Amino acid sequence: MTEPTDIGKRLAVTSRRQFLHEGGALLGGAVIAGGLAGSEASAATDSSENLPPNVPEWMKTPGDPMGSQLYGTPSPFEKDVVKNIPKNLSQYLSASGRTPLQDLDGIITPNGLFYERHHGGVPTIDPAQHRLMLHGLVDKPLIFTMDDIRRFPSESHIYFLECSGNPSYKKPYGKTASDLVGLLSCAEWTGVPLKFVLQEAGLQPGAKWIVAEGADAAAMTRSVPIEKCLEDAMLVYSQNGERLRPQQGYPLRLLLPGFEGNMSVKWLRRLRAAAEPTYSREETSKYTDLMPDGSAREFTFYMEAKSIITRPSGGQRLNAPGFHEISGIAWSGRGKIKRVDVSVDDGKSWQEAQLQEPVLTRSLTRFKLPWHWDGESAIIQSRAEDETGYVQPTLAELLAVRGENYFYHNNAIWPWRIAAGGEVTNAHA
Amino acid sequence: MTEPTDIGKRLAVTSRRQFLHEGGALLGGAVIAGGLAGSEASAATDSSENLPPNVPEWMKTPGDPMGSQLYGTPSPFEKDVVKNIPKNLSQYLSASGRTPLQDLDGIITPNGLFYERHHGGVPTIDPAQHRLMLHGLVDKPLIFTMDDIRRFPSESHIYFLECSGNPSYKKPYGKTASDLVGLLSCAEWTGVPLKFVLQEAGLQPGAKWIVAEGADAAAMTRSVPIEKCLEDAMLVYSQNGERLRPQQGYPLRLLLPGFEGNMSVKWLRRLRAAAEPTYSREETSKYTDLMPDGSAREFTFYMEAKSIITRPSGGQRLNAPGFHEISGIAWSGRGKIKRVDVSVDDGKSWQEAQLQEPVLTRSLTRFKLPWHWDGESAIIQSRAEDETGYVQPTLAELLAVRGENYFYHNNAIWPWRIAAGGEVTNAHA
Repeated sequence: MTEPTDIGKRLAVTSRRQFLHEGGALLGGAVIAGGLAGSEASAATDSSENLPPNVPEWMKTPGDPMGSQLYGTPSPFEKDVVKNIPKNLSQYLSASGRTPLQDLDGIITPNGLFYERHHGGVPTIDPAQHRLMLHGLVDKPLIFTMDDIRRFPSESHIYFLECSGNPSYKKPYGKTASDLVGLLSCAEWTGVPLKFVLQEAGLQPGAKWIVAEGADAAAMTRSVPIEKCLEDAMLVYSQNGERLRPQQGYPLRLLLPGFEGNMSVKWLRRLRAAAEPTYSREETSKYTDLMPDGSAREFTFYMEAKSIITRPSGGQRLNAPGFHEISGIAWSGRGKIKRVDVSVDDGKSWQEAQLQEPVLTRSLTRFKLPWHWDGESAIIQSRAEDETGYVQPTLAELLAVRGENYFYHNNAIWPWRIAAGGEVTNAHA
Repeated sequence: MTEPTDIGKRLAVTSRRQFLHEGGALLGGAVIAGGLAGSEASAATDSSENLPPNVPEWMKTPGDPMGSQLYGTPSPFEKDVVKNIPKNLSQYLSASGRTPLQDLDGIITPNGLFYERHHGGVPTIDPAQHRLMLHGLVDKPLIFTMDDIRRFPSESHIYFLECSGNPSYKKPYGKTASDLVGLLSCAEWTGVPLKFVLQEAGLQPGAKWIVAEGADAAAMTRSVPIEKCLEDAMLVYSQNGERLRPQQGYPLRLLLPGFEGNMSVKWLRRLRAAAEPTYSREETSKYTDLMPDGSAREFTFYMEAKSIITRPSGGQRLNAPGFHEISGIAWSGRGKIKRVDVSVDDGKSWQEAQLQEPVLTRSLTRFKLPWHWDGESAIIQSRAEDETGYVQPTLAELLAVRGENYFYHNNAIWPWRIAAGGEVTNAHA
């Protein structure tokens, strides 16, 4: 054993350190010895060996007893990691609240931070009273209780959900990743493939659309092409293991992987098989776009390939030059992410980022790139490509095609500006 | 359009219905028309088409405003889905609380329901004050702040964690899946590969073990073979996207995928590289087993392949004969689950269950089997096999080898008994 006799003296106090990673030299964070040097002993520690300095207060008395919370909550030190709710809205019934993407890691959004978009508030629904009706162009109209739905064969899949108004095309642009594209979350959903339920009722040959209606005060209604209903649409009742949260449609939600979020109708009460779409408010007055030639772009279902760097991102700060991992998320409503490229020189050159496995269809995919920041100002951005070969466009490219009246489906590359002092801001702002 | 003019009259009222699924005829749940027939209209519904019967109360007034909760919670109707905390323990500092497995779907455990096992209560740690020290047989002892740890390259993986005392070998056996094997959960973890941190300090040739210590009042201490530390061990700071919960080691936890849960030391404050294990209390007096020949089985790191049917399971009830999906979870500390077989005839015959993708290493894997219950008494059970070819044993097989003094590492097949009336109970009880 050659352990140090005075750990405090041997602690490195340099402000940088190097380590090797896959053949390349990277710079790590600062080693901090201040406040911890010394050799104070404590009976509470591994007494057969040299002791670590300074036993913290929380080791000196027992902690909170087990089961203090029957349903757990985050640490009080994370109290600012909450949903991003706009202040001073005129009303909060048809409104949206965002996921704090810049504070999250990995691909799963915890249920407490899943984004919200409601059109008539959040109903409180008793699952024992809730019913789903399936009618229209079917051989046998049916009404299901939640117990009925639970008896169908189940599937579980990790899928993202994103609002098509994420982000706005118009200034002012959001300051943080959450402000900008926080109407985006990802969860493991469990439920019944919709096709099983449709088969049960017997679709008639003329059924080309399924019109879905929610049990909220807005009776949120959207028309879904039958092809999607028979492909991967689900009736979901669970999210990240537990039952859906009220804000996500408890007790039953239509889930359309890769389609704009509002079509995944929450609090689902009715499915009507029809020959034509119903042309509801949310697919005519809203969720359509006026093109430069005066035509309307409608039924814009798919969320196209997109990505955003979440770390470092707007509102954050790089504390020191040296190694920093660039990390972000990419997704496509068309399927799997094939690659993500990252530029750290305002788009002059691009490097392929590493994708964190598993790369799943219509899920968030986490990407990462090691980066040595030289301390100078820089503009960083990411560009996603999906398995169809589609490449995420720039904002200028989108605006050139879609014109000034466009509102939905902004999947532009979004750059962050890093100032020489380390401050990160929205480069388009 | 051939929609019905009177939906109420066309509703099926049979108690069973059939649908086709992958070529086999299955029986679904009951269709219930009672209480919903009628044709009451409402301006809130899709007014261009025939209306669903009975508009529920929650459609008639606006719901809760958006952002009522900045950090969301489950529906009040799910208030009984909480951690399974034993009542009347003599103390709750060294104790355990279980995940309600029978109420969950998929593979992700929501953070609020993750199982707990503490040895000195749950400390409340300020992350700004927390330090990790790395010393012993290293070239350069180091102390890290949380900011330092965050600057290392990150990875995210979905891994299960399980207590090795899950379940007890001795009666009384648990009544529910949670009572029995609820010291088991699964999450997406994000953090730093431990090998990067060890490389930073420079491991000396004699370093064969890493001794990890927690910052709780128990100073929970375990020795980890260096091979594991260089393979897939992580220092994790996030769980299902957000920062670790206090009960899971906030702000920093050692994570040893596939090893018994207590070795994934929570509130991690110290790593000491050493030539020998430290023979702490939790690897001598506890977490070892006396074998029939008088020797002690120690350092029993790996959680071997295991599975449990969660639906239907103890405490639940089948309401009617007919189609029921059998669903459960399987896992192995050695790698991926290769297959799961299910028996519905007390082990006389077995059928291969379907595994839900993605099947990930050292993660829970959800399995499913369609089943037609004839309404008679039955004993159902599942048997997991992992990619090493290891097959989950029966309880009798385990007891024959390990004897009467065994406590830990019970990975036996566990059967459920279904009575003719549908009641599900523990078949070994």
